[in-house]
Amino acid sequence: MSFGAVTIIGPGLIGGSLALALTERKLADRLVVYARSKSALIELQSACPGAELTTDAKQALKDADMVVLCIPIESMFAFVAPVAHLFKSSAVVTDVGSVKSRVERDLAPLLINNAHWIGSHPMAGSEKSGFGAARANLFDGATVVITPTAKTSLVADKRAEEFWRAVGGCVVRVDPETHDNYVAQISHLPHLVAAALVNHSSTEARELAGGGFRDTTRVASGSPELWTEILAANAKPLVKNIDDFIHQLLRFRFALEPEPGSANPFTSLLLKALQKAQRTRSELLEKKPNFHKRP
Amino acid sequence: MSFGAVTIIGPGLIGGSLALALTERKLADRLVVYARSKSALIELQSACPGAELTTDAKQALKDADMVVLCIPIESMFAFVAPVAHLFKSSAVVTDVGSVKSRVERDLAPLLINNAHWIGSHPMAGSEKSGFGAARANLFDGATVVITPTAKTSLVADKRAEEFWRAVGGCVVRVDPETHDNYVAQISHLPHLVAAALVNHSSTEARELAGGGFRDTTRVASGSPELWTEILAANAKPLVKNIDDFIHQLLRFRFALEPEPGSANPFTSLLLKALQKAQRTRSELLEKKPNFHKRP
Repeated sequence: MSFGAVTIIGPGLIGGSLALALTERKLADRLVVYARSKSALIELQSACPGAELTTDAKQALKDADMVVLCIPIESMFAFVAPVAHLFKSSAVVTDVGSVKSRVERDLAPLLINNAHWIGSHPMAGSEKSGFGAARANLFDGATVVITPTAKTSLVADKRAEEFWRAVGGCVVRVDPETHDNYVAQISHLPHLVAAALVNHSSTEARELAGGGFRDTTRVASGSPELWTEILAANAKPLVKNIDDFIHQLLRFRFALEPEPGSANPFTSLLLKALQKAQRTRSELLEKKPNFHKRP
Repeated sequence: MSFGAVTIIGPGLIGGSLALALTERKLADRLVVYARSKSALIELQSACPGAELTTDAKQALKDADMVVLCIPIESMFAFVAPVAHLFKSSAVVTDVGSVKSRVERDLAPLLINNAHWIGSHPMAGSEKSGFGAARANLFDGATVVITPTAKTSLVADKRAEEFWRAVGGCVVRVDPETHDNYVAQISHLPHLVAAALVNHSSTEARELAGGGFRDTTRVASGSPELWTEILAANAKPLVKNIDDFIHQLLRFRFALEPEPGSANPFTSLLLKALQKAQRTRSELLEKKPNFHKRP
């Protein structure tokens, strides 16, 4: 299987891993990797020996059958706007941004008439970033969300699924708004919470911290710049989720500190909540992503 | 080095790991393991071949030079009360409970005149429990807090430090109240938060969850019964920490949703908070526990 001429825009953790996976699995007749600066391409010379490395956007897009935008959300518009007319009309274009409504709103209008556009979000991040953390098997078994809308072409939908499956991912289809609410719950809120747990703790308390605290806060080691952009881009669903989450914490709080004179109900309320969480989390570990139908 | 006749009360994750470590490192002239029921001792017959296994508390305490209470906090009082007079007056007695003020209040008065009492808390838990999860190297490099008070004897303080170091731990001294505030920050609040994150998320959202969500919520797989008891026993410091933590989350919330018409300050506030968290967490990974002075 080959996806023809494939162009990766931005060889960071995700783009770099894609370049490595495409090289290793021989999934492209021609592989082009674009970066803004030459220095970002040096490591790829040996890691992806057959790839064309370029800092020229025009050359990167010329004749590309598949283009994957692997740059921060806020950079995508600036990158695409001046070159949107250069995409081959038969090209399938996708991205790897963590927030999809914003991408649909700002980017899709530039692309939808020039190529086959569809949004993607591989759930394969890490607290590390850059090509140094990239690896060919990053997508193995990872859930990759693709976010077709009513305007998405059949070609884009089919090629995107084939592409992400070819690099190892399990493809799930969700509409952009629903995706953004889901990732607020399982990624963006946990990130904020992890950062807040670290910042809340005192230096002395952290000297006692064991594996539990390290795991719970691992994501807080992610790039602050990248995450500020992601969280800000998904502010609306995130704020709603913060509010609901605080409500949950307050239920715990009042269970732990019942009204003076009232029967002490905390044990049963707390126990039920912890039992639910334990049960739910064990299902999480067993569950494989479903293959959703095209909307 | 030997600690003479050592008795472990309760062969769960911690007690079982202690029995394995003492056996492997030959740290006891005589090792006795007590459990309420015979069935809890079956696995130890082959795992700790030299140990005396008993369901008779009197026999377990007879002639013991060192006794480690490895049973839930709420069970400790019921276990110790009827047998407190049986401890050898030269015996060093400690526990492994996660909350120390409660233990000092309820248990220390029973023990302080009968033996050398000092509280301990090895920070070496896991989301697993029971002897099946026990391992001889559980304490290797783990922080073990000992909580001497003004009444603690020099003998208890010294032997407890030697004992925990001998099984691999890094010993830290903190007074009981301070300990309880610290563990509220780095263990109990993170546990509540992890459970709340799981319960807050929808089934559909969890289908997209990757390694980040799994790590952030790992501790929520811990025993609900055990954790309900721990959280309830530390309710007062925990409530204060929940309140402060919610305050942190609200700052994020209002940064993400600024007042209409106001300049949008969220990027810098959020960025600063995430930078602080990232920096602090990297220090966490580098840091080794300090050896605190005796108070």
